[in-house]
Amino acid sequence: MLYGWTGTLLRIDLSTGKVAKEPINEAWARDFLGGRGLGAKYLYEEMDPRIDPLSPDNKLIFATGPLTGTNASCGARYMVITKGPLTGTITTSNSGGHWGPQLKFAGYDLLILEGKAERPCYINIYNDTVELRPAEHVWGKTVSETEDLIREELGVPGYVIACIGPAGERLVKFACIMNDKHRAAGRSGVGAVMGSKNLKAIAVRGTGSVNVADPENFMRSVWGAKKILKENPVTGQGLPTYGTEILVNVINEQGFLPTNNFQMSQMEGAENISGERLHDTRLVANKACFACTIACGRVTKLPDDAAAKYMVTTHARNWKTAGEGPEYENAWAMGADCGIDDLDALIKAGWIANDLGMDPISMGATLAAAMELYEKGVLNDQITGMPLRFGSGAALVAMAEKMGYREGFGNELAEGSKRLCDKYGHPEFFMGVKGQEFPAYDPRGLQGMGIGYATSNRGACHLKAYTVAAEVFGIPKKVEPAATEGKAELTKIFQDATSVVDATGLCLFLTFGITLDDILPEVVYGTGIEYDAASVMQVGERIWNLERLWNQKAGFSGKDDTLPRRILAEPITSGPAKGQVSKFGDMLPEYYRLRGWTPDGQPTASKLIELGLL
Amino acid sequence: MLYGWTGTLLRIDLSTGKVAKEPINEAWARDFLGGRGLGAKYLYEEMDPRIDPLSPDNKLIFATGPLTGTNASCGARYMVITKGPLTGTITTSNSGGHWGPQLKFAGYDLLILEGKAERPCYINIYNDTVELRPAEHVWGKTVSETEDLIREELGVPGYVIACIGPAGERLVKFACIMNDKHRAAGRSGVGAVMGSKNLKAIAVRGTGSVNVADPENFMRSVWGAKKILKENPVTGQGLPTYGTEILVNVINEQGFLPTNNFQMSQMEGAENISGERLHDTRLVANKACFACTIACGRVTKLPDDAAAKYMVTTHARNWKTAGEGPEYENAWAMGADCGIDDLDALIKAGWIANDLGMDPISMGATLAAAMELYEKGVLNDQITGMPLRFGSGAALVAMAEKMGYREGFGNELAEGSKRLCDKYGHPEFFMGVKGQEFPAYDPRGLQGMGIGYATSNRGACHLKAYTVAAEVFGIPKKVEPAATEGKAELTKIFQDATSVVDATGLCLFLTFGITLDDILPEVVYGTGIEYDAASVMQVGERIWNLERLWNQKAGFSGKDDTLPRRILAEPITSGPAKGQVSKFGDMLPEYYRLRGWTPDGQPTASKLIELGLL
Repeated sequence: MLYGWTGTLLRIDLSTGKVAKEPINEAWARDFLGGRGLGAKYLYEEMDPRIDPLSPDNKLIFATGPLTGTNASCGARYMVITKGPLTGTITTSNSGGHWGPQLKFAGYDLLILEGKAERPCYINIYNDTVELRPAEHVWGKTVSETEDLIREELGVPGYVIACIGPAGERLVKFACIMNDKHRAAGRSGVGAVMGSKNLKAIAVRGTGSVNVADPENFMRSVWGAKKILKENPVTGQGLPTYGTEILVNVINEQGFLPTNNFQMSQMEGAENISGERLHDTRLVANKACFACTIACGRVTKLPDDAAAKYMVTTHARNWKTAGEGPEYENAWAMGADCGIDDLDALIKAGWIANDLGMDPISMGATLAAAMELYEKGVLNDQITGMPLRFGSGAALVAMAEKMGYREGFGNELAEGSKRLCDKYGHPEFFMGVKGQEFPAYDPRGLQGMGIGYATSNRGACHLKAYTVAAEVFGIPKKVEPAATEGKAELTKIFQDATSVVDATGLCLFLTFGITLDDILPEVVYGTGIEYDAASVMQVGERIWNLERLWNQKAGFSGKDDTLPRRILAEPITSGPAKGQVSKFGDMLPEYYRLRGWTPDGQPTASKLIELGLL
Repeated sequence: MLYGWTGTLLRIDLSTGKVAKEPINEAWARDFLGGRGLGAKYLYEEMDPRIDPLSPDNKLIFATGPLTGTNASCGARYMVITKGPLTGTITTSNSGGHWGPQLKFAGYDLLILEGKAERPCYINIYNDTVELRPAEHVWGKTVSETEDLIREELGVPGYVIACIGPAGERLVKFACIMNDKHRAAGRSGVGAVMGSKNLKAIAVRGTGSVNVADPENFMRSVWGAKKILKENPVTGQGLPTYGTEILVNVINEQGFLPTNNFQMSQMEGAENISGERLHDTRLVANKACFACTIACGRVTKLPDDAAAKYMVTTHARNWKTAGEGPEYENAWAMGADCGIDDLDALIKAGWIANDLGMDPISMGATLAAAMELYEKGVLNDQITGMPLRFGSGAALVAMAEKMGYREGFGNELAEGSKRLCDKYGHPEFFMGVKGQEFPAYDPRGLQGMGIGYATSNRGACHLKAYTVAAEVFGIPKKVEPAATEGKAELTKIFQDATSVVDATGLCLFLTFGITLDDILPEVVYGTGIEYDAASVMQVGERIWNLERLWNQKAGFSGKDDTLPRRILAEPITSGPAKGQVSKFGDMLPEYYRLRGWTPDGQPTASKLIELGLL
């Protein structure tokens, strides 16, 4: 008998409509836990990594972890594992809300989608009953409209819905999969993969529950962890009160807030888009995912006049005056990176991103790259249809919508900034790694983030090794942001530990307050398997190396572990970190060595044997 | 429909007696062909390489190739794949005769043996009928007695029998598996594995045949190859007339014939044990394996007085006055390496080795090491029971028998020379690699053999990369034996090409006359699969790397790719190659580089991906 895991996966071939329930591979579950780990293992074993990510050959895997749907804080997560169309790498996009727990309650650890439906459809999962239903009537609808229509159609209360918006249907390269209207499996274009399969939504209702192996000790460890989270100033106060947006002022003051497509690293007017300002002016309430004790979500509202200010777009009638967000990343990408300090523009564009189903990081950063191309005369109004100047909230809101619908110049932006910059002859303005745009931390100031971005298996990403925790917040201990010494090791440890958290079904934000040592008992008492500190870290290392191998099979190599010239050779021009570049080359050889890889970044047979990957 | 392969494997669990017929994995067959390749793949996939080779956990795989049992010359081979008790490595021991073809005719490509029988038994395979039968009545019998008794018992004519002798029963570390009385899957102790399973023999009779995909073109390529073999001076005249023994004078004249445990490299009196002398004095006839056009086998007879000369042993009544052999390796190990130039002693000891079921190379070489220990005063008569002086035919014949029965000092010799030399505090007298004794070519004189021995996956072996062909015979072109330049590449090419030949079911001796280019059409028309020169060589490279990975999982590393100090640092003291040592260190880094491995000898992920091993 399995605990934590349901023991069953659901496999649906959209081409044939065949639905199969299979026992999960228990040895794989033990070795990879769940979520990102188990999902990656299935993708690795079942699919040739060289396929076209938008072809029916791609598989789209939704994976929960053994703690998803338990009352461990914050056991709300599922991950989407697939070949990302933005990057061509394996991608592993994480989302909260209630969808993951609901899939567990319905009886499934994983959902593996294959093939391509002939016509738009959606999946209805109600415990054992699984069916494909036509979705022509919701095709073209926004995320919130889609959820409402499907929920109404299914009639029974309690459905949780994941879906794509118009951006996913139109294969926007950074389209996401949304659930609970405002939660997103955000990056690398997982929504486009869903769109390519003619799949609009997955509605899930489950009436079961998750069995844990040792309920008494499990609850004891959960209570212990919750107590720590409550008493911790970040998870107990900062995040609930100000959300992730609390970071804007902190990061800006230290000069790590990339501005105007990384031409600067500090933004005048940053306080206008800060968490404090949001809290004081536009916040309605905070909001939590399933079983969460933090509740970092931001429910926001615009006064009528502010909402009206950006009613400049064709589809503007759709954008309501209330919604959720922005988060820190969102506010940075649409704000500082585009030089925009108008909070209302960010809020509006963020709602648009959510409702059309787009990753706000890549969306904002792509616009930022376009703005640099525009200001440097490479693009002009004839191409773009409107001025794209840094600081223009109007451009942001208009282009957000045009990207989601692939209208006008938005159709070019919808390909992401790498393809945009390549097309217009300035690849050097693409700020990212492996085709994916950087998030909100300048790797010239934060040396750890440089090595982390460059070696991240899904392209630039802050969520795979958040060394900011140590470099800014002193978690687990303070290290100097400008130092390179020890950063390779820090990055490796963070990468492996994060892989574990992502595999459990818990939320990474926990780690502001608790450590793997606190999570370990939840895993052990939840699953009944005697992991220890070493074996659970090895799970993380195994996941990391598996993703790496997957990418190598897809054609990536150590050559792709790099940073743009601007980051390596153009010093920061402003703020406290002025004069710094990423000393990436000083860290990479050590990183490879610590990983047990060859000097050109390949796993060796001995490392793979050690991890059971050979 | 499969051609070449029967498509079925036979799996017998000796612990439970369960017999199962399974379809072979066709993808593996395509990637690894058969024989050594497909057998190694099954061992790799099914068994933990860290198990004790003499425990029931070891598997014993008999594997034919797609050309085994066809009339391609010389399609007679099967291979035994298992964890070798002499070495701890994967081992792949090759045998001819009629047993392999017979297994195909019965309907099976592979025979996989697992577990351990409770009591001595043998396997009877007659087409579909497969049964385990008690073998108490033949346990303890010699190879020839066992064959005769079982054949009589089974009653039906046409059985071909593979069995172990007393050496295999007694777990002699270099026991072999014999078939057709005189053919041997010889090295690394595969017979001890069979003995450890309480399995005495495998009798096979099949009345089917092997289907080829394109009979007309297949026969055309077979006739073409046979014509070349007939016209070639080595395969058409030298080997049929003089057998492999023809090498004694050739190798000795050039000073590459290791003598007295590699203390010298040329032997006075070598002509006394040469193929020419054998031909002129003791040869009765030559003899061929199934479908062979070469017929290198030696049927030999001793006159009564010569036979009587060595009637000095307890079991001497068993040794007849006619038998087969010696071959070159046999004559070298028991002859030159022990300083013995009495042909009759070699013939007698060779018959003993065959009838007790022992590898004559390791047997002779272990005695040679004991002789050096004895002459240097480390061993004495009290330990050995008799003088063990270089040159003593009496010691050879007596100890051959004592080793096979593990009697007296023979019990220590039965552990092989590495364990012997370690035990007596002189590991430097062990002449071999990875626990397996060198064969008959001094790697100080033949630089290619040095790199080949050191990197051979089953320990020192001449049959995995016979660079002698190029270094002495100019096949495919003459290279300087003393040169190191190009030897790493030559070795790699020979290793890969040999792996292919070993996988087809053909005999390696073909390659004295024909090349892979001649064999390729037989494989293509035989199997119906469109291999080309590149893809078939990649099969070989894949096999080589798979064996390497297996060993790495078993605990071996680049550190084990080395040669004894004597070979590296003590120059040859006599003959034309006087003054030479192996310049192994000059070749190894290049070899690793050409293999696409790390500088410490590990396959990289990119090489494994290229070969489909990841």
